[in-house]
This record gives sequence, structure tokens and C-alpha cells, in this order.
Amino acid sequence: MSGTTLDDYTDLYAQRVHGMKASEIRALFSVANRPEVVSLAGGSPFTSALPLDAIGDMVSELIAREGAPALNYTGGQGEEALREQICAVMAAEGIDASGGASPDDVVVTTGSQQALDLVSRVFLDPGDVVLTEAPSYVGALGVFQAAQADVVHVPMDDDGLVPEALEQAIAEVAASGRRVKFLYTVPAFHNPAGVTLAEQRRDTILEICQRHRLLVLEDNPYGLLGFEQDPPAPLRARAREGVLYLGTFSKTFAAGIRLGWILAPHAVRDKLVMASEAAILCPATFNQRVVARYFETMPWREQLKVFRELYRERRDATLSTLAEVMPDGISWTRPTGGFYVWLTLPESLDSKAMMPRAINARVAYVPGTGFYADGSGARHIRLSYCFPPPDRLREGVRRLGRVIEEELTLRSTFGATGAAGAPRRVTGDVPPGIA
Amino acid sequence: MSGTTLDDYTDLYAQRVHGMKASEIRALFSVANRPEVVSLAGGSPFTSALPLDAIGDMVSELIAREGAPALNYTGGQGEEALREQICAVMAAEGIDASGGASPDDVVVTTGSQQALDLVSRVFLDPGDVVLTEAPSYVGALGVFQAAQADVVHVPMDDDGLVPEALEQAIAEVAASGRRVKFLYTVPAFHNPAGVTLAEQRRDTILEICQRHRLLVLEDNPYGLLGFEQDPPAPLRARAREGVLYLGTFSKTFAAGIRLGWILAPHAVRDKLVMASEAAILCPATFNQRVVARYFETMPWREQLKVFRELYRERRDATLSTLAEVMPDGISWTRPTGGFYVWLTLPESLDSKAMMPRAINARVAYVPGTGFYADGSGARHIRLSYCFPPPDRLREGVRRLGRVIEEELTLRSTFGATGAAGAPRRVTGDVPPGIA
Repeated sequence: MSGTTLDDYTDLYAQRVHGMKASEIRALFSVANRPEVVSLAGGSPFTSALPLDAIGDMVSELIAREGAPALNYTGGQGEEALREQICAVMAAEGIDASGGASPDDVVVTTGSQQALDLVSRVFLDPGDVVLTEAPSYVGALGVFQAAQADVVHVPMDDDGLVPEALEQAIAEVAASGRRVKFLYTVPAFHNPAGVTLAEQRRDTILEICQRHRLLVLEDNPYGLLGFEQDPPAPLRARAREGVLYLGTFSKTFAAGIRLGWILAPHAVRDKLVMASEAAILCPATFNQRVVARYFETMPWREQLKVFRELYRERRDATLSTLAEVMPDGISWTRPTGGFYVWLTLPESLDSKAMMPRAINARVAYVPGTGFYADGSGARHIRLSYCFPPPDRLREGVRRLGRVIEEELTLRSTFGATGAAGAPRRVTGDVPPGIA
Repeated sequence: MSGTTLDDYTDLYAQRVHGMKASEIRALFSVANRPEVVSLAGGSPFTSALPLDAIGDMVSELIAREGAPALNYTGGQGEEALREQICAVMAAEGIDASGGASPDDVVVTTGSQQALDLVSRVFLDPGDVVLTEAPSYVGALGVFQAAQADVVHVPMDDDGLVPEALEQAIAEVAASGRRVKFLYTVPAFHNPAGVTLAEQRRDTILEICQRHRLLVLEDNPYGLLGFEQDPPAPLRARAREGVLYLGTFSKTFAAGIRLGWILAPHAVRDKLVMASEAAILCPATFNQRVVARYFETMPWREQLKVFRELYRERRDATLSTLAEVMPDGISWTRPTGGFYVWLTLPESLDSKAMMPRAINARVAYVPGTGFYADGSGARHIRLSYCFPPPDRLREGVRRLGRVIEEELTLRSTFGATGAAGAPRRVTGDVPPGIA
């Protein structure tokens, strides 16, 4: 039964596979995780701050008491006990029963990544348009591209998505004869931009979407991680209809447990459950019970304070070091919560082309190009301050400052022509896993 | 922000949603799980037979020792330690390094359901044809339908898929101008048919698929659960190329942990990893470490013997009671492993229409229609013997025998016209969740 080579089968691939490209974030993991490199790349939460011994005891008791059902199948929507805890978490952000949020309208997912995927399956046909912030979350862009949708970016400023730009984008898409299905937005502590949608823009954006009959896909992984104060109430807390709300336990508890959720209008919820059953049958029962038990029995609000304090200190270390070391012409956002700072370099620099030199200088980041569907963003850099301790963050930012400084010197020596040529040449040196 | 009703948004649904229908298996869960009902419906493994206290200790130690990384993100392909254990499990079925199986070619998935979904995403465009046995696994049919593929069923007999029928199906599809992408098959202890593909047919089927350039998607959840002997070597053990092999820990360890895998040729593996990252970022790290630790440190081969003995006893109870109570004209398969018996009723009966009367008689099963993409199969019933203890199985089969007996009496009283009319009438009485 031999003699057939594998490439004989690749002509069987589906159309959508031709649009699949390796994610820059994924590709970076292998290099950025080397111990000598300070990684400002990955958005991994600092799980060492969890009360691991207590969680271990809780889980072993759970297995002893209800291991047989916890290790078996359950329903596709997710277990009711967990959906009740999800409603308690959402209530902490202002989404509660008075606004129509009920456990019955929650669909439990394998992280909010699967939530993005399910919404895409239910709403997106090839060629449909999704509006997103510019820049936008790399994982969402990957889902929309896998769904063969067209992503249209809408500009942001320090107050988040710009309403006038949203109106304009809707008009332009309509003029091109295409159909917008929804606006994907991360209103609080944006990934990667680190900004938050201002209070006074929130109702305006909802009004625009309702007027044009667009769904809003609100992704809120960081809303409970505000450093000075809570962000303005989520869009779903302001509008009962027309908003699909995505949450996750990845940042409030543990990313490696892979549980998130969608709060959706009833009719949509049924479709999402069916789509999820086709995808995974049911979310892991074991994980659902671990998370439900954690939120039922352990002081999760206190733990959130621990996380907020920890990330605030890391943000401070990052911002103060940026102010110390970055040359003129570099700007960055000042996040009031979440995990990320977004840097803007002078136009002559290319953050993707600069990557090998940064890795060589033992610091890693994610080039801005990962956060744009159209390959732009080379002037930008995402820095994550969530995982390394403050001393490492300071060291990493200092290393990055030196890399940028050298890059600017190189550019000023070779001039504009050299600047345009060099990145292209250097890109070829980037290991395949990184580019 | 009110005044918009949810149904205003349903016209935004994707095309594929119009093909989504509630799975009969899912719909049955709520009724079949009532304590007074003997459920012969669900395929839940008997997780009570696991050493729960030892697993609890193992997990709590794991969290104490490596909780921080176990609760964080990991790579999209799955962790190497788990992929090594997966290769050890596959080796127990004859798929080993000498046949080119390596941890590097394994993609870890959220149960083998996600494996089916990923393969469908990578290979299926709308309108592509998938060949499957008649009947076929309901979860696979759901995935193929969600992918907007056309399913063409190929007849089986007691020796599994019929090679001549496969040739004929391929020719007919080719004549219709459509494109077959792969053959989906469960060669060992088939779900729902309970039969096993005979040794002498295996190379023939591989040869047919290779000659027509079809991939084989081999799904093998039950291969280690043979009661008298192991099944013939899997197709993947006979052919290094052209076979995508799907495995799962749902039956050898725990379904509620939701971990399975795909063994794929290298080029295909890369596409599967990217598709999985778009779907879920990464499989749950925590679950991967729990399963890897279980297979590294606990006597899993001994545990498999426990499961095999337990399920063999349940199969025996089911088959002997069927022989005692079933009226003439009913036939069934005699599984030599796995979870299922497949009943064939006289043509005058409709197993779906009979469901409410069965539930009323406190026994549940899955009507055969769930296992055919074209809605046929009303003469068939799937009985699962995996979960209820032998006494309950005997009671359930007796109840079913009485229901069928009454149904036959009704048919012989009302004659052919009554038989054709009654099921339609009664179907309207079935709760929406069941039909």
C-alpha cells in the first residue's frame, strides 16, 4: 500500500485553505519562550498568582465527589451551574437580569476563540464584510479570514473606535455592493491597542449599528482588569438586542482551562448551540465543573484584585521605562487596564523587518502587521506586560529601546532609499516560523 | 436602545445555518435521562469504573507541581508529552513508528468531534461529496452537513463496508459530475451498526480509495474495546499515505475531558493546526497534562481490561434478552466490541414514530433516522449498552420488546393503510425536543 505521496492529496483542499497563513503570534512562541529572551510578545495571563494549592484540593475533592459525571459527556449549551456563575460574573460588569441576561441565553464555549468561530459560522458567508477596529485582535482576524469574510478596518483614536469613521466605513461598503454582517469590537482595554471606548461614544456606536441593522459582536476579555477604575458599562449593558456578548475565564481564572461564553438573543443561541455540537459535541464537562466550583466556593473577587494590582504594577514599569528609553518620534498608548501597550514608530521603520535584530538583542514583541487584515501596520508594535515581572519588563523595554535606536541610526545613515530597501532584504532572514 | 426585536437579525444568518437541524441524539438527552427511563440512547462511557480517588490525587499533585503552566496557553498542535502518549496508545493498535507514525504528525483536538470538524474545514467546499457507511455516526453527519457537503451512503453488511458497493458509489458520483473528497469510515465496532470491517476487505478498500484518489478518514474510537479479540489492524496500520486517522480518549479514559487527535501526513497536519488555532487557539493545556499524566503514571492497560470486561457483560445481557423477548421479524447485529447493537424492524414499523410510546413505557433509544443523511432509517433502532448496568439493560430491552409487540399488533389490526397513517399522526405528539 505504498507509492502514493502525500502531495497527491493537497489538490483536494477546500478553497478556504488557500487563505490560511501562519499567525505571527503563534510563530513567535517558539523563539520568544527561550529563557534568555524577554518576551513582550504573548498575552499569557500570570497564572502563578493563582492559589494553586487550594485549587488542587478543590479539584481533587470534585473528582472524588462527582468524578463520574464530571468525566462524562454533557449538553452542548454547557452546564446550568456554570451558566449561573457566568451570569454572576457578567453582573459584576453591569450585564444583569434587569437587562435580560439569563443563564438560558448563555452558550459555553472552548475559550472565547470558539465563540468567535461559532458566531462566524452562524453569520458569515464567503464575501460578507466584517467591520473591526484598526488594529484588531489577531485571533479574530484569523477566524474571519478562515470564514472567507472580508475584513474592513475602522480607525480608532485614544477614545477607541471613531463613530464618524464607522459611519463612513458602512457607507463605503454599501457603495461597493457588499454586505456587512457585524461590527467586531473590543471596547475595554483593547487588544492590541490598549485603549478604551469612551463613555460618550458607546450609545452613538450602538445607534449607528442599529440604524444600519448590523449586529455588534462585543468581545470583553479584559473588562474586569481596570487599574484605576472600571471601564464604562459594556455595550450589552446598554442594549438588550443586537449585541452578541463574548466573555472568557482566560483572564479572570485560567487560560489553559479554555472556557468562555456567548450571551446571545434566544433565536441566535439555538443556532450557536447546534454549531457548537457540530464542532465539539459539548464543552469539557470536567473544566466546566472546575470553573463553576472555583467561582462558587473561592474568593474570585479578591483574586481579581490581586491580578489588577499585579498587572497595574507591570503596566507602570513598562510605561515608565518607555518614557526613559524611547527615542524621539516613538509614541505609545497609556492603557488603564488589560495587558497591552501599542507603539507607533517613525514611518521609516518596519517592526516586522526589525524582529530578527530584536530577537538577537533578546527581546520579543509582536509586529503590528499581525493585527491588520491587509498586511499594513508595519509601523506598530504590540508590547504585552502581563507575564514578565517588573524587572524583566524594564530590561525588555530597555533592550527594545536600543534596538530601535540602532535602527534609526541605520536609517539616517542610509537615507530614505536604504530604509525602503533594507526591511525587504532582512525579511528573508526571519526564520519561517516568525514571519 | 430598545425597540429592535431579535428576529430582525435572523436574515443575517449564513447559508449553512439553513441546513442546521437539531440532532436526534441531543434532543433525546433531556427525556432519556429521567431516572425512571432506562436509556439505551446515549453513548456515554461508564466513567464510574475509573479509579476516581487515584485520579483526584494525581490531578491535585499536578496542579501543585505545575499548575501555572498547566493553567496557561500552549501551542495549537498540542503538547509533545501528550502526543508521545498518543503514539503509545496507537502503537497498541498496530500504528507505530515503523509505519511512519510520529508525535510530530499528531494534532491534539477537543475530542474527535473537533477532529472531524477540522478535517472538514481543510477539505470540504460546499457541494463536495463525502462517502460514509449506511448508517453512519450522527456526529459526523452533522459536521458534513454543516460544511454543506453532500453525504452519499455506501451499504454495509455483517462484514462492514461492501467493497463492490464502494466502487459503485464512486462511479455514480463521478457520473453525476460531483467530486468525492473522502471516505469516512468507522471500521471497528461501528457506531451505530456494531459491525467490524473484515480483515479481507481492508486492503481492498484502501486499494479502491487510492486508485480513485480519495482520502480515507478512519475514525477509531472503539478499537481497544474488543471483547473476544482485537479487531483487524486499522487501515492506517496498512497504509502510511492517504489515511487521516482519528482517535479519542473519550472511551479509553474520559469523555468529559474532551481530548482526541488526528494523525495526518505532514503537509495536511500544518493545515489542521492552523484550522484548529482559528477555532480554539489551543486544546486545553490542563486537560492535556491530566491525560498525559494518567497514561504515563497509571495502569491504563489494566483499566482497559476492566472496561472491556464490563462492556462485554453488558453486551451479553443485551443480546441474550433480545433473543428472549423480541418478536419474529426483528433482527439485530452481534457486536464483538464497542457500545452498540443495531436493530432492524419489519417494514411496517417506524422507530421515530414509536418513540413517544417507548418513552411512555420508560425506555429510550435512538431512532435509525438519525444515522442517515437522507432521512431514511426509520426501520432501525440503535441500542447502546455502555452505560446502564446489566439488570437495567435487561429491563430496558424487555420494555422495548413489549412496545414493539404492541406496535406490531396495532399494525396487523389496522392493516397497511393504518400503518402508513398512524406514524404521521403520532409524530405530531412527539415533544419538539425529541423529533
